[in-house]
Amino acid sequence: MLGTMLENVRRACPLIHNITNYVTVNDCANILLACGASPIMADDREEVSEITSICAGLNINIGTLNSRTIDSMVIAGKRANELGHPVVLDPVGAGASKLRTQTAKRLMNEVRFTVIRGNISEIKTLVSGSAATKGVDANIADRVTEENLNDTVDFAKAFALQSRGVLAITGAIDIVTDGQQAYCIRNGHPMMSSITGTGCQLSAMTAAFVTANPATPLEAAAAAVVAMGYAGEIAHARLTNLDGNASYRNYIIDAIYNMTPEMLEKGASYEVR
Amino acid sequence: MLGTMLENVRRACPLIHNITNYVTVNDCANILLACGASPIMADDREEVSEITSICAGLNINIGTLNSRTIDSMVIAGKRANELGHPVVLDPVGAGASKLRTQTAKRLMNEVRFTVIRGNISEIKTLVSGSAATKGVDANIADRVTEENLNDTVDFAKAFALQSRGVLAITGAIDIVTDGQQAYCIRNGHPMMSSITGTGCQLSAMTAAFVTANPATPLEAAAAAVVAMGYAGEIAHARLTNLDGNASYRNYIIDAIYNMTPEMLEKGASYEVR
Amino acid sequence: MLGTMLENVRRACPLIHNITNYVTVNDCANILLACGASPIMADDREEVSEITSICAGLNINIGTLNSRTIDSMVIAGKRANELGHPVVLDPVGAGASKLRTQTAKRLMNEVRFTVIRGNISEIKTLVSGSAATKGVDANIADRVTEENLNDTVDFAKAFALQSRGVLAITGAIDIVTDGQQAYCIRNGHPMMSSITGTGCQLSAMTAAFVTANPATPLEAAAAAVVAMGYAGEIAHARLTNLDGNASYRNYIIDAIYNMTPEMLEKGASYEVR
Repeated sequence: MLGTMLENVRRACPLIHNITNYVTVNDCANILLACGASPIMADDREEVSEITSICAGLNINIGTLNSRTIDSMVIAGKRANELGHPVVLDPVGAGASKLRTQTAKRLMNEVRFTVIRGNISEIKTLVSGSAATKGVDANIADRVTEENLNDTVDFAKAFALQSRGVLAITGAIDIVTDGQQAYCIRNGHPMMSSITGTGCQLSAMTAAFVTANPATPLEAAAAAVVAMGYAGEIAHARLTNLDGNASYRNYIIDAIYNMTPEMLEKGASYEVR
Repeated sequence: MLGTMLENVRRACPLIHNITNYVTVNDCANILLACGASPIMADDREEVSEITSICAGLNINIGTLNSRTIDSMVIAGKRANELGHPVVLDPVGAGASKLRTQTAKRLMNEVRFTVIRGNISEIKTLVSGSAATKGVDANIADRVTEENLNDTVDFAKAFALQSRGVLAITGAIDIVTDGQQAYCIRNGHPMMSSITGTGCQLSAMTAAFVTANPATPLEAAAAAVVAMGYAGEIAHARLTNLDGNASYRNYIIDAIYNMTPEMLEKGASYEVR
Repeated sequence: MLGTMLENVRRACPLIHNITNYVTVNDCANILLACGASPIMADDREEVSEITSICAGLNINIGTLNSRTIDSMVIAGKRANELGHPVVLDPVGAGASKLRTQTAKRLMNEVRFTVIRGNISEIKTLVSGSAATKGVDANIADRVTEENLNDTVDFAKAFALQSRGVLAITGAIDIVTDGQQAYCIRNGHPMMSSITGTGCQLSAMTAAFVTANPATPLEAAAAAVVAMGYAGEIAHARLTNLDGNASYRNYIIDAIYNMTPEMLEKGASYEVR
């Protein structure tokens, strides 16, 4: 099932419009190409409506946002909704500043998102508006663990129902839910937090997966999360004693490039609650 | 002959001013260093005229353009023309939005370009203003093939004459022409399209080559195109079964770094029509 | 002693706010993670004050500056000063344009910097306002050599006293001084100048080191400079004959990731004058 999601990305080669931060934008473009999609980056308000129209899906990431690009996000998001294109929101650093929190909330009010993907701290901010966010990483007190997994799944399901979309909370254990079912995913490796942009890359890839699998957004988002985590495992196994986080970054993208549907299916580690 | 072009870049170490997109800017800087040139990136209207003045060549790339940077492109382009510096245009995504198409056309009206480098779809847009562009990749129906090569060469020569510069159309077969002669280049590897920015990198490198070889822009641009394609071949031969597009990106830049004039001469695969 | 500086970064995991150029921003983020710190990038005036408040240190880099981000640099710098956070200035390309020179000087007037790190040409510009800067690289006539080392150390000490902070002039020989003592550091490899951003990465890492070692900014900055140079040596030893500057870039970050305090201590090559 999850393998089919990847197969469909490779078959459809969806063109994904990204309005994303300048920190990890190159990695986002390369991971989209690695999974079989095609990226286009455009953030000027004069062109985002048109660019989104020629694409099949949209990925909005609020890292390094500014007043110019915030407007573009809203314009592109609304246009994508009109066209029925899947839209993904990555609320990077929501909670770290009023601007990010308010922008994320404004986007949620004005745009319907197929998937929202963030860490637990960012997602809690979207719900409550009062989380303390340690930069772009999940607040340690808010880490998803085996002990709090059931509670977090309930929290995630409630938020997914409220947002009428799929919610992906990623961390040591990932939760992907549409409000009814929740995939609890245990792929990944702790070293992934030592590279910048695995979250951004996952959001971009999630946009490709839900775009190529319009009827099954939950499974598509889960497949993207599994693919990213499994790539982190494959890449880690490949590290030599001289390799560090820079090589690891490359190896993860390489692993997505070489991942077959069969590998994804076999490497997936999850349960549905 | 083509080897001499590279030799001159290594000897002159030209400083190249780049106004370019934030997606592939780091790769552009590193490939300029790899070929022996030196990069400087600056896009604010308050400084581009001065920055271009201390450089020897200018590379304008319209990917992720915005109203602020468009003005800077025009200012820098005009100043470079006044100073007699070579200027390269990469019309990334021309045809994908009115803003990009109009900006590319405005630049062509206000700035004289030594070389324009794009894919066939972008170049057709510059001519007709009506191409359908699939993101930043060449429209599949418009791919240059052995069957349509003669017609495309004629089209390219006509456009080169009209623009009074060198035109480089890159794809499976590359065409580089000054309107009189056309290099038809068969270097490269299909996997190059699975990384973001090989086109952007080539445009940056072309700026270095024409800057270091002011008397022979056609040969210089052809040498840059051959170097990039040949680097794609060398890098592909180096791939292990775990490597993917991220490692391939690094290996291509590495191949430019290690390419000697002799290697370029020997590896070149082209004919002149 | 220098090893302890790195140990403290790994222990404190300081969150560093970066307002930096879009050319090397990804490398800056990854090298911060490699040394044990955590990066956040934010440059909008609406959020920089808040972002800097939740961080422990600030890194300001003026490459690819524009009117929007210059204001943000000043706002963030002042706020960091109020909070007693260490602040690093990287005056990239000071001397190459009036905008860069004036911005660097404005920042020095309005913000107190814990460390200023640049090449000799940029630093001379900050002192005199009249240097000719060849892009972002040190002017060749102004290179620090064994012959002019004593004079340059005197110059550096005088400027450090004037700026009431630590000054790091990097090049073939690096000088790090607080006006009293000067570390003359001979780590590094000439090939480091063939990759973009080793200076930017060092500035980001310096911010992490001085933040995690607030009582010893001189030793902390010297440790960051030694770490970067030694990483350049380790990475160079690892190069195969197919590797070039792209792989070298990755290997340097990898070397920081794998560097232990003991390795840093043992690999350090410096004298104090």
